[in-house]
Amino acid sequence: RVDSGSLRLYRCYYSKICQWALGFTIAVVLALAFIERPSSLTYTSDIRFKPKPWEPPCGLTEGIEMVCLCIFILDFTVKSYLIGWEEFRMNKWLIGYVVVITASVIDWMLSVSMLCNENLRVRRLIRPFFLLQNSSLMKKTLKCIKRTLPEIASVILLLALHICLFTMIGMLIFSKSDDPKKNGEWETYFKNMPKALSSLLVLLTTANNPDVMIPAYSLNRAYSIFFILFSVFGTYLLMNLMTAIIYNQFRGYLLMSIQTSIIRRRLGIRAAFEVLCCPGRGHTSTQSEGHVEQVAVNMFLQVMDRVHMKSYCRQAIIKAAQEFPDGFINGETFQRLFTELDKDFMKEHPPKPEYSSPILQQIQYMFGHFYIVVLGNVVALANVICICTVLVLNSEKSASEKNNFYMEILNCIFILYYLIEMLLKIVAFGWKGYLSYRNNIFDGFLTVLLLAIQIAIFITYRIPNEDMDPDQGRVIVLWEMVRLVNMLIVFRFLRIIPEIKLMAVVASTLVDLVKNLRAFAGILLVVYYVFAVLGIWLFKGAITPPLNMSLISNYSIENKTDGPFSMDCGTFEQLEYWPNNFDDFASSLVLLYNIMVVNNWHVFTDAYSRYTTEWSLVYFVAWWLTSSVMWVNLFVALILENFTYKWDRSNALSVEDVERIAYQST
Amino acid sequence: RVDSGSLRLYRCYYSKICQWALGFTIAVVLALAFIERPSSLTYTSDIRFKPKPWEPPCGLTEGIEMVCLCIFILDFTVKSYLIGWEEFRMNKWLIGYVVVITASVIDWMLSVSMLCNENLRVRRLIRPFFLLQNSSLMKKTLKCIKRTLPEIASVILLLALHICLFTMIGMLIFSKSDDPKKNGEWETYFKNMPKALSSLLVLLTTANNPDVMIPAYSLNRAYSIFFILFSVFGTYLLMNLMTAIIYNQFRGYLLMSIQTSIIRRRLGIRAAFEVLCCPGRGHTSTQSEGHVEQVAVNMFLQVMDRVHMKSYCRQAIIKAAQEFPDGFINGETFQRLFTELDKDFMKEHPPKPEYSSPILQQIQYMFGHFYIVVLGNVVALANVICICTVLVLNSEKSASEKNNFYMEILNCIFILYYLIEMLLKIVAFGWKGYLSYRNNIFDGFLTVLLLAIQIAIFITYRIPNEDMDPDQGRVIVLWEMVRLVNMLIVFRFLRIIPEIKLMAVVASTLVDLVKNLRAFAGILLVVYYVFAVLGIWLFKGAITPPLNMSLISNYSIENKTDGPFSMDCGTFEQLEYWPNNFDDFASSLVLLYNIMVVNNWHVFTDAYSRYTTEWSLVYFVAWWLTSSVMWVNLFVALILENFTYKWDRSNALSVEDVERIAYQST
Repeated sequence: RVDSGSLRLYRCYYSKICQWALGFTIAVVLALAFIERPSSLTYTSDIRFKPKPWEPPCGLTEGIEMVCLCIFILDFTVKSYLIGWEEFRMNKWLIGYVVVITASVIDWMLSVSMLCNENLRVRRLIRPFFLLQNSSLMKKTLKCIKRTLPEIASVILLLALHICLFTMIGMLIFSKSDDPKKNGEWETYFKNMPKALSSLLVLLTTANNPDVMIPAYSLNRAYSIFFILFSVFGTYLLMNLMTAIIYNQFRGYLLMSIQTSIIRRRLGIRAAFEVLCCPGRGHTSTQSEGHVEQVAVNMFLQVMDRVHMKSYCRQAIIKAAQEFPDGFINGETFQRLFTELDKDFMKEHPPKPEYSSPILQQIQYMFGHFYIVVLGNVVALANVICICTVLVLNSEKSASEKNNFYMEILNCIFILYYLIEMLLKIVAFGWKGYLSYRNNIFDGFLTVLLLAIQIAIFITYRIPNEDMDPDQGRVIVLWEMVRLVNMLIVFRFLRIIPEIKLMAVVASTLVDLVKNLRAFAGILLVVYYVFAVLGIWLFKGAITPPLNMSLISNYSIENKTDGPFSMDCGTFEQLEYWPNNFDDFASSLVLLYNIMVVNNWHVFTDAYSRYTTEWSLVYFVAWWLTSSVMWVNLFVALILENFTYKWDRSNALSVEDVERIAYQST
Repeated sequence: RVDSGSLRLYRCYYSKICQWALGFTIAVVLALAFIERPSSLTYTSDIRFKPKPWEPPCGLTEGIEMVCLCIFILDFTVKSYLIGWEEFRMNKWLIGYVVVITASVIDWMLSVSMLCNENLRVRRLIRPFFLLQNSSLMKKTLKCIKRTLPEIASVILLLALHICLFTMIGMLIFSKSDDPKKNGEWETYFKNMPKALSSLLVLLTTANNPDVMIPAYSLNRAYSIFFILFSVFGTYLLMNLMTAIIYNQFRGYLLMSIQTSIIRRRLGIRAAFEVLCCPGRGHTSTQSEGHVEQVAVNMFLQVMDRVHMKSYCRQAIIKAAQEFPDGFINGETFQRLFTELDKDFMKEHPPKPEYSSPILQQIQYMFGHFYIVVLGNVVALANVICICTVLVLNSEKSASEKNNFYMEILNCIFILYYLIEMLLKIVAFGWKGYLSYRNNIFDGFLTVLLLAIQIAIFITYRIPNEDMDPDQGRVIVLWEMVRLVNMLIVFRFLRIIPEIKLMAVVASTLVDLVKNLRAFAGILLVVYYVFAVLGIWLFKGAITPPLNMSLISNYSIENKTDGPFSMDCGTFEQLEYWPNNFDDFASSLVLLYNIMVVNNWHVFTDAYSRYTTEWSLVYFVAWWLTSSVMWVNLFVALILENFTYKWDRSNALSVEDVERIAYQST
């Protein structure tokens, strides 16, 4: 729709405030999972010590949710009104949006009618859809992932064949023999088919690497060949081939998305030109060729005032437009005007203030010098080394035994130095000049914060005495604050990173990466959310705390393994993994993270298959496949793509080169 | 040198036999490490049960080594004679060769004069140089790695900064508190600076992932954020950035090496043309232009007879050359003749034999059909499923309890089927036609082998009876042979891989990869060799078996952890990692492999720092950096490079396209 009312609505809908409000609503809906029953509002998730959590009264979370759902309904209405019925029918995402909202509302009503006592809340599972629906980048990435799936499936098939084959050969090699001393391998890892399969699956992730071969390897060296072959072929070749396949699919993904956005912008500019040059023509008489099309500069400047863009781009374009002698711009120059948008903004630092006093001039000269930065870094390093030394010396002392006197004195001196450095730099560069360096903002902010904490310490405790205050509580609070100061100082030390050139390159790559990471982070969030909610459904309360809890907690301090209730080594109970459970949303997230990292994941699968059924393995393997196999590989692909793109670009490739390459490759 | 004698020597030196002999010598020298003291010729490396190994008499290995060294000296003499003194001085590798040979000979003489009682054998450490020196591909790869080092160093610096920063913050957060119950984290992982550093270093490799956070996480959920931040930043971002950097350096590496070889070949062909067309001209009168240069076909054919190349290429070229009408070839067509070399050889299967008998024709028609292949695969699958079922049913039985009767009968039937299938296929395709399929060779070889073993079983045991022979020993030997038959059948099942299209693509990528892997495998071998020899020097005999061995071995079967001599969970002793030690070469290799896989590597470092000094950590961290960080990343880079290259090539890029792209990109 292009009528004036719709356009105003369109502009309003895509304004920053509206989009921000929508994003906030999505965040609120997703965050509800932390508060809803089972709520995560306890200080610990360890089932041995967990207190009864605060449960929100029935209706609170439901109320918030209803408000959010209403906003989504409004959003949906506006969106579908704007794109029209014809487009709506074609757009699968919008249809999905309707379905999800409807299902959520129905589920919500059921929930309210049962006075919040329902066991199954389907709407929790489908909530992440709102996040996906709202980001075009995520939709695009999802499409890309979908395209890769057949190839990934073939590698997974090959992996499955690999595991099956080795399982059979392994069972044939490590079968039960008549000599009970030689049955170690069979007993522990190859007793039956499921056990052998899971042993090798875990070995594929290297999580039980030396352990699984030890009983056999101890009998004969040659048995190690079986395991090494398995790992080399499975873990190193096939798993990395998966990375290669995913990377290959994402190669050029960044380049393509940049190209698309450039082409779109070109199209938009061209359309703007058409509209501006012949306002009355409508879209029927586009054939009026031969007559030179031009846009008046005045009109152009009027339009520029109403366009949203970065202020420095606008200034550059207006300045360029005003330089046209005859007051008219033709098509090509119109396009060229907007190449300003591609250029990166070179920030100009404001000029240094000019002082008349020779002392101030001297200071200005000195503190504008490069060596002062080096000196600042050296002092920061010295400070960190001081803290380090004190830490090493005090590492065996508890808070009340520590003598903070020297530490405090040292910190005060350093903070004083930082303060003076900051003030003199402000004098040298002027207020605005000082703030125009990002480095200085970082330094200054931390210095002010440090000063504030230090003053707070002085007010509360006066000047610290060498002979300690007998009041224990106050000393500990003091120590906590000193600790905070120290942490901030260590953090402030990060200012050295941009100074070392090689590290600056790597660090800037990292920063760029994080910018391009949003879509992936969003999809990861969706996956985590869905699996965490599923996990809570399936395994909530499955693991029960040990019965004789008091006994164990007494023993655990004195002697961890020899207590009467000790379990086998390497089990969930012996390793005290109690806080990792599916009893609330936050702890499920941490548990899922731990499985994604893969190390020791067999401990979790083993525990859950003991406490519930063998089928729980399906859930864990599914999560392993999606997170560790798929997502981590996607992440690696993204990093590779980003780095090589940045590398190519830094080697003198401009936007035009990108286009040229794209043209040649098609 | 280009005189006739030198050329003959050159030709002889680069002949297959000479190069093969040189390679064999290098292999022998490297393999000596297994036999030399400490010799690896024991069935196990477990220090609890290890028998005294057979020590070679003094002079045996030294004798072999001297022979090898003499061959190297000969090789060196020929090489330096061929390239001349001028070139020799410029070639660092050759100079290194002299130095290494001299050092080896001196060390050898010392060793002989001390009657093999020396402790330090320097020459073992420098032996891998021979391998490096002999392969131009490895030298090239090494150069490539050298070029990447500065960037890798910057990432490692960033990693070090990351670890240091988090160590300090960690020590501040997890300092000793007054409540002994809350000291778990401090006690176990952050007691002092070295401990905190190593905890976080291990966490960087994720090897102690959930464990390290458990004591703190159990107290409060928020502590997990510290560890998750550390892992996400260190393990996922920085480590993968390392992969990206290495990959970026190796991007185009394959393409470039192919280009170089094409250019070299062009140059060679051009030179050959020059020599052939104007034999008397020498290299002074190259300016005789304007006169069309031609080569007589007869002469060309004579030369072709003496050139080494694949027979099908030669045939194609000779055929093309004979088609020239006037008996002369000019420069351009000469070049074009050799494009045959680039073409892949399409193997033609010999025609099917023609039979007069209608039965044979019927068989031929039937067995040439596609369905027979499918049937063969189905039967193989059925056989594997049978074995699988028997395995599941028998998994709890020991060898003597197993009843092999039904298994044997089944296997006989299947082997009979395989045999008939093979024979009928031979009838259908003819002898040569059958062997022209690689698939059939694989099948046929395994079938014949199976038949041989089966016949051996029949001869030794007659037909197996249902009521078992009471002689235990014979039953077990029988079972071993049946096991072998089963393994071969499972192996034969691999024939299905080329039948499934997606898997065939992936599998062919893998095969290609292994071909391109030689240089990397060589460098890996060198690194392993050097580190293993170093490890033997440093840590030989460091770990001593437990004193009360008999007690432990008695207990170990009944109750692994509760015995009176049990150690803490997760230690070297409790996990019974005894066979992993540096007492001989083979076990050092396995130990180094286990550390490369990274999982549980802290167990090894912990054990060695307990049995020797804290400084042993330096060795292990160095190995971790070279193997797991550098080499695994190189490997990933290679796989990515190979896969993307293959992908681009399969998307219709021929050799000419490669050249065109290279031309455009310069």
